[in-house]
Amino acid sequence: MNNFFEKLEELTRANNSLLCVGLDSDLEHLPKISLLKKNPQIWFNQQIIEATSDLVCAYKVNFAFYESLGPAGCENLKLTRKLIPPHIPVIADTKRNDIGNTARHYVKAIFEVLHFDATTVNPYLGYDSLEPFFQFRDKGIFVLCLTSNPGASDFQLPNDLFLQVAKKCRAWNEKSGNVGLVVGATYPEQLQKIRQTFPKGWFLVPGVGAQQGDLEAVVRTGLRVTDNRGLIINVSRSIIFASAESDFAQQARAAAEKLRQQINSIRGMIV
Amino acid sequence: MNNFFEKLEELTRANNSLLCVGLDSDLEHLPKISLLKKNPQIWFNQQIIEATSDLVCAYKVNFAFYESLGPAGCENLKLTRKLIPPHIPVIADTKRNDIGNTARHYVKAIFEVLHFDATTVNPYLGYDSLEPFFQFRDKGIFVLCLTSNPGASDFQLPNDLFLQVAKKCRAWNEKSGNVGLVVGATYPEQLQKIRQTFPKGWFLVPGVGAQQGDLEAVVRTGLRVTDNRGLIINVSRSIIFASAESDFAQQARAAAEKLRQQINSIRGMIV
Repeated sequence: MNNFFEKLEELTRANNSLLCVGLDSDLEHLPKISLLKKNPQIWFNQQIIEATSDLVCAYKVNFAFYESLGPAGCENLKLTRKLIPPHIPVIADTKRNDIGNTARHYVKAIFEVLHFDATTVNPYLGYDSLEPFFQFRDKGIFVLCLTSNPGASDFQLPNDLFLQVAKKCRAWNEKSGNVGLVVGATYPEQLQKIRQTFPKGWFLVPGVGAQQGDLEAVVRTGLRVTDNRGLIINVSRSIIFASAESDFAQQARAAAEKLRQQINSIRGMIV
Repeated sequence: MNNFFEKLEELTRANNSLLCVGLDSDLEHLPKISLLKKNPQIWFNQQIIEATSDLVCAYKVNFAFYESLGPAGCENLKLTRKLIPPHIPVIADTKRNDIGNTARHYVKAIFEVLHFDATTVNPYLGYDSLEPFFQFRDKGIFVLCLTSNPGASDFQLPNDLFLQVAKKCRAWNEKSGNVGLVVGATYPEQLQKIRQTFPKGWFLVPGVGAQQGDLEAVVRTGLRVTDNRGLIINVSRSIIFASAESDFAQQARAAAEKLRQQINSIRGMIV
């Protein structure tokens, strides 16, 4: 099974989880013990993945934390994808796209060279900067709609631009079947409007955890009515850096397990 | 001299040029002779740089064409920057930014690890996704305003969003002094409005050449009134791929020289 959304649906059931762990493995914040290893970032990721792989519906890898290490970091992106068991979908959080010919090179980099299952893209450049991504029907394409940061009020909120993005993405998804949205956890009222606009879509939701989004409001307003799913709730720092000591993997597991249960208890399911 | 805009101003005078050559060195389109070399992309870039360095005000490197080669491409980004003489400013066309902590890692990747002098960023995420870039006062930050592709009509043109972006960038530039815009060559009417909105700004203008933007309209409407400068006109494919034969560097020089002169004759300067 190679289709991102099929893998995702399957794993939400198998692991009874809407939790995505973000492998934002910032070298400066790794537990000290990692720094004794040959490749600290990869060793750390391996421990986190082993400790949490039965609790997640996906992993997300933000490329910034790897690219800041230069070419060695690019190699670590490749290695990280390989560490994750193939039945678990992995989202490349790259937020990059470009026009026509150039977009195709990003597609190649993310899907064909690094073998990620999904990516995040920015809507500002419009359809022809996204279409080369949509063409990869087996991959998930999450378009930034409303982000969790204060700067969302600069351009996304005025004139309800975020809703225009949601509307266009719903239409684009009708053609290619692989378009989701990124919707921050910090605006539950707007999340409700976005859900009304795009009832069937999968939303990748960052901003719970370190960014203090309200988990309960997010799950209540964001879930897909039809199947009590449709949210991928990403948490990074408060899971992977739950402890800076040698018990970090165990503490990451405990934090992930707690969040998975919190989400499920709001979903009203037996956990 | 390490300040991007100072270097740029200096070189527009020294080389009497507003032309930027885009090193979009797509491996699939390199002249056959390059493929015999150990590192085709780097060898090709070296020939192009040697043939054009006295005709340009800057180079631009679009990361997509390098990242699609995996970790070796990341290494080539570093090597390409090193090939370019230090007095020539080099723009990293990355179109990537992210919120807070993550943005700082992209800044590190582009400016501290790869040593580029400027970068392109996407405004959608708002101020706090850009501010970590603006903090590097010696670097140039070009915010996407109105792009040259058809998709500009999806979100940039409705409600004059591109003008809102131009207004905010003008204000941000008053604080940090290093904010420019990306304005495509295919919308000269809107370019005029953007110039009125941000009279002092430097605009990076792609879309002349392969994308068929109207050079004359662009230069006439986009130039800064005060000093007949303020435009960095980027041309990639129609210069670097002017010939697929072994005379490619010579033909690239001829194409660059022709464009430099065309631009200058519209500027009404003696060339």
